[in-house]
Amino acid sequence: MLHLLQPTDPRWIDAVADDLPGLLADHAHCELKAAQSALSMVGRFGGEAPELIEPLSHLAREETAHFREVSEHMEARGVTLGKPEKDDYVGALRKAARADGEAPALLDRLLVSALIEARSCERFQVLADGLTDESLTAFYRGLMAAEARHFTLFRGLAEARFGADARRRLARLAEREAEVAHALPLGPTVHG
Amino acid sequence: MLHLLQPTDPRWIDAVADDLPGLLADHAHCELKAAQSALSMVGRFGGEAPELIEPLSHLAREETAHFREVSEHMEARGVTLGKPEKDDYVGALRKAARADGEAPALLDRLLVSALIEARSCERFQVLADGLTDESLTAFYRGLMAAEARHFTLFRGLAEARFGADARRRLARLAEREAEVAHALPLGPTVHG
Repeated sequence: MLHLLQPTDPRWIDAVADDLPGLLADHAHCELKAAQSALSMVGRFGGEAPELIEPLSHLAREETAHFREVSEHMEARGVTLGKPEKDDYVGALRKAARADGEAPALLDRLLVSALIEARSCERFQVLADGLTDESLTAFYRGLMAAEARHFTLFRGLAEARFGADARRRLARLAEREAEVAHALPLGPTVHG
Repeated sequence: MLHLLQPTDPRWIDAVADDLPGLLADHAHCELKAAQSALSMVGRFGGEAPELIEPLSHLAREETAHFREVSEHMEARGVTLGKPEKDDYVGALRKAARADGEAPALLDRLLVSALIEARSCERFQVLADGLTDESLTAFYRGLMAAEARHFTLFRGLAEARFGADARRRLARLAEREAEVAHALPLGPTVHG
């Protein structure tokens, strides 16, 4: 699915189902960080790659809207947002990319973002299929389509600028992503 | 104006008029950073202060829309976005707040944000009155109202949570802000 080489461990859904408040709070932070990351890419790379400006500004607004949707589900359940915690998956994926040979910083930033969207999409499908709360399964089924679109956006931006290099690099980083996802302990977080 | 104790040096407009591309690129980065800062406040403080979540998420989307407006003015002039640079004014203001006695982190974050909005509003008025390019003067006149609203939003959030402490602290930080604004060298940036 979307270049992912390793499906999520089926036991992940149990870790999540035991702590829906934890999942929702983590998910809310994921959306906030995704919005901030899109804006920081615009600021850092919008000069050399002006074609990023419009789609990533738009993406930031969409991720912010998703954050609000998650936070409404939290309010409805009396769940409050904790402090943001480090996302070990994202940290390990960035580190693996840096360790894996030389690639332009922009290319890796786009492709790591693409893979995070792909993994999020896959996890949301697991949630849509595996949770019993109907308002949450409908919510996650709706978000899957958005994450798939975001994957396609990031991959498309990478390919438009870097061509065959982008396709080769995505294949390599997808291998690193599968290792990272497999190595992490299971927990009640989107990428845990 | 909006609690500012020190008007902008009249010579600032000359520094700006000599380098409109520099001003626009800096302004674009200011809007991006403001959006990121609002989202980071939501993530960091939204748990203890859930009343921030809705207005600051909305603010982030508005700042992102303003960024797009600035970047359209840049495109129309063939100006590209440079790398983001440190904003010496914002850095000095945060440092002055930290050095100036003990206050809750959230209170200072709200009030420093309020003062940045106030100073931006004042600078946009100087631009609206002092530039000769009509599309830019109209643009900056339009943004003034938004910055004034943002000042009121941040001050209101601070007062709703911290009451008289917020009013006393704002008076102190406004003194620090005036010193910071006065000490900076004049340059073609929004806060320079």
